[in-house]
Amino acid sequence: MKNLLSMEHLSTEEILHMLSRAAAFERGEAAALQRTYHVANLFFEPSTRTKTSFEMAERRVGCEVIPFDAGFSSALKGETMYDTVKTLEMIGIDAVVIRAKEDEYYNELLEGINCAVINAGDGAGQHPSQCLLDLYTIHKEFGHFEGLNITIVGDISHSRVAKSNATALTRLGANVRFLCPAEWAGNFEAAHSWDEVLEDSDVIMLLRIQHERHAVSKNFSKDSYHEEFGLTPERERRMKEGAIIMHPAPINRDVEIADELVECERSRIFAQVRNGVFARMAILETILKERN
Amino acid sequence: MKNLLSMEHLSTEEILHMLSRAAAFERGEAAALQRTYHVANLFFEPSTRTKTSFEMAERRVGCEVIPFDAGFSSALKGETMYDTVKTLEMIGIDAVVIRAKEDEYYNELLEGINCAVINAGDGAGQHPSQCLLDLYTIHKEFGHFEGLNITIVGDISHSRVAKSNATALTRLGANVRFLCPAEWAGNFEAAHSWDEVLEDSDVIMLLRIQHERHAVSKNFSKDSYHEEFGLTPERERRMKEGAIIMHPAPINRDVEIADELVECERSRIFAQVRNGVFARMAILETILKERN
Amino acid sequence: MKNLLSMEHLSTEEILHMLSRAAAFERGEAAALQRTYHVANLFFEPSTRTKTSFEMAERRVGCEVIPFDAGFSSALKGETMYDTVKTLEMIGIDAVVIRAKEDEYYNELLEGINCAVINAGDGAGQHPSQCLLDLYTIHKEFGHFEGLNITIVGDISHSRVAKSNATALTRLGANVRFLCPAEWAGNFEAAHSWDEVLEDSDVIMLLRIQHERHAVSKNFSKDSYHEEFGLTPERERRMKEGAIIMHPAPINRDVEIADELVECERSRIFAQVRNGVFARMAILETILKERN
Repeated sequence: MKNLLSMEHLSTEEILHMLSRAAAFERGEAAALQRTYHVANLFFEPSTRTKTSFEMAERRVGCEVIPFDAGFSSALKGETMYDTVKTLEMIGIDAVVIRAKEDEYYNELLEGINCAVINAGDGAGQHPSQCLLDLYTIHKEFGHFEGLNITIVGDISHSRVAKSNATALTRLGANVRFLCPAEWAGNFEAAHSWDEVLEDSDVIMLLRIQHERHAVSKNFSKDSYHEEFGLTPERERRMKEGAIIMHPAPINRDVEIADELVECERSRIFAQVRNGVFARMAILETILKERN
Repeated sequence: MKNLLSMEHLSTEEILHMLSRAAAFERGEAAALQRTYHVANLFFEPSTRTKTSFEMAERRVGCEVIPFDAGFSSALKGETMYDTVKTLEMIGIDAVVIRAKEDEYYNELLEGINCAVINAGDGAGQHPSQCLLDLYTIHKEFGHFEGLNITIVGDISHSRVAKSNATALTRLGANVRFLCPAEWAGNFEAAHSWDEVLEDSDVIMLLRIQHERHAVSKNFSKDSYHEEFGLTPERERRMKEGAIIMHPAPINRDVEIADELVECERSRIFAQVRNGVFARMAILETILKERN
Repeated sequence: MKNLLSMEHLSTEEILHMLSRAAAFERGEAAALQRTYHVANLFFEPSTRTKTSFEMAERRVGCEVIPFDAGFSSALKGETMYDTVKTLEMIGIDAVVIRAKEDEYYNELLEGINCAVINAGDGAGQHPSQCLLDLYTIHKEFGHFEGLNITIVGDISHSRVAKSNATALTRLGANVRFLCPAEWAGNFEAAHSWDEVLEDSDVIMLLRIQHERHAVSKNFSKDSYHEEFGLTPERERRMKEGAIIMHPAPINRDVEIADELVECERSRIFAQVRNGVFARMAILETILKERN
């Protein structure tokens, strides 16, 4: 595996290998890398948890992290993504972790770049490291994917997470359904009421309402979103035994989910953050160990 | 000691213990920590010296520092302080050092957070690590606190430093007085002319005029502030033998203090910066050694 | 060598020593430093490659790098450069690498500062580490400087690179010429057409069109600049055998140079970036080994 760009490029074997390595890291195993690799994190959009999680994972597999301030870089002088990454490669960087606003920005990097590219989110496209940590969280819980009913709730059409996860979970045998207001379904078929999906879901995966990308308020306020599509205590009580709640965070408390449910027994929201470090260690190890 | 939030939470024993550890670090002793701890610095307000000082102290006690760009974080997406810190805890951070605009922001972090919290300044509230370095500077100079006349000069009502220091110094037996324009005294009793305090002060502690928080110019220009409340060469000559000058910096030269006095014999202004690293090493060691 | 401020301060021996150390580092030799030094990078202007290159070089010679966020520092509160650097010195920083907008900002740092100062670009002044990497690139190619025809093309009057390089290359025996639109020559004598310089140049050193500093568009558009002063494939074919193309980057593709030439056989543009790390390791080693 040279790069990690999109879940669609991964074979089922590669996915399962990384989940197994994540579990090994969680048990305390060390990464199997021969030398110190140099990594840079290029975040052209704000993100606490993804960037910090990669920073931690990079140190835990023994990388040296070279700081790169995307908000203060030559990209501001109009430099192409290719030239920025090629420059880092010549400086001695082995892998770049990139989050950028443009869908599939990485197409520019497929030829001529030797440095590994790890996609940490491209526009409204993919977010494969988030997907792998979600898969790891589900697999840890249930031990398998086959036949699980997984309901993704929120702005499906704009969500990187929804797309990455739907593709991968379906391939692994899960039954993925969507729940959202009609105008947010995009090309996906979706339920429009909790009653259709609530009681037989094994996993309820809430998406973040992205105030940055579009207004909640077109057709409803935050309150009315919560009332219609949010996970309320009353709905949580109707969930199946053993079913879990997930959310990629940051959370809008009392919008996607009631404040009091964020750390409830079913919630794996903060566990996902913890799992993210192990999943990212697995990605880094898998990619870096193929380099000399 | 689980957290360091406010000087008022510290016992006299805890204060004296940290001063003694700071002295040990200045003599070259190594920190007594069993493992590598992970720390993140969350500075939601600009600060060169406090942040850089913590960064150095963290490395000197053997911590691994995970970068956190507060100006570019999920806080911008409306995430609560609790969720940001809980996320860092789940990523594997042992201690967060926080500067934030809100007074007592840390009240939100008292329950549910396991990660240690070190307050590096809360709004117009406290600034305990600055206070400890000031105490260390005074103790190094005089060997004790009892009976010292300490005069704090400047914008008392808005100053974190004034409040932290007044509380702690009084408790340790010093005699703390204030000097400031009438409208900056807040609830404190203050002198309004140098003549009342200049000649018997052992320590003159100048505060920074905070252009960010209020205009100097309401009632006086920079020049007239300097004339009335600044430390001029003429006033320095009237100071007691052995008395010292302190300032938390950054300095407005020729406002709080005449340019030519900044590095004069009585000045401990740059020594305070040096002492700050030792004081912060003491804080970090004291807090981290209680974690497993 | 205590500081590196301007090429004019360096003796020919010092320059040749650093080129020879850069070559040693490229062959894999380790830096001859006795202890871990602490370094901070103060970039008050954006720059991907210079900052990242220093960050890498610092780690490769074994330094500990203390992060300093110039866009978020006390300089915003009006602190002088002297006070900022003195503060870092007291915190325990051994060397600061500075890029700033003001020409010769470093004059403020010549007295009273003990910490080493490495100039990474001052306004429209000098950029000595870029110059040393250019010298290293040329020396690696030709084995000497004497008699080489070196043509610098672009905005001579505003370019740090042009000034640093012209001074040093002339001193080392090269024959430096300029090519630029008449209004960009400043006090330099310059050719105004490729025909005067193209066919006998050993090195064509293209400068970046600095949209930040002045508009290309005063007298010509990007396209007409490219047509008159850009390196086109047709011009590249007329270059001398063995002649090379250089550019300090970031590149404006199809302005200074045709897109298809950026990685052509004659181009040393990305090799310069690679060489920059070795040149900066040589600078750091030369300066730091003189400190105790």
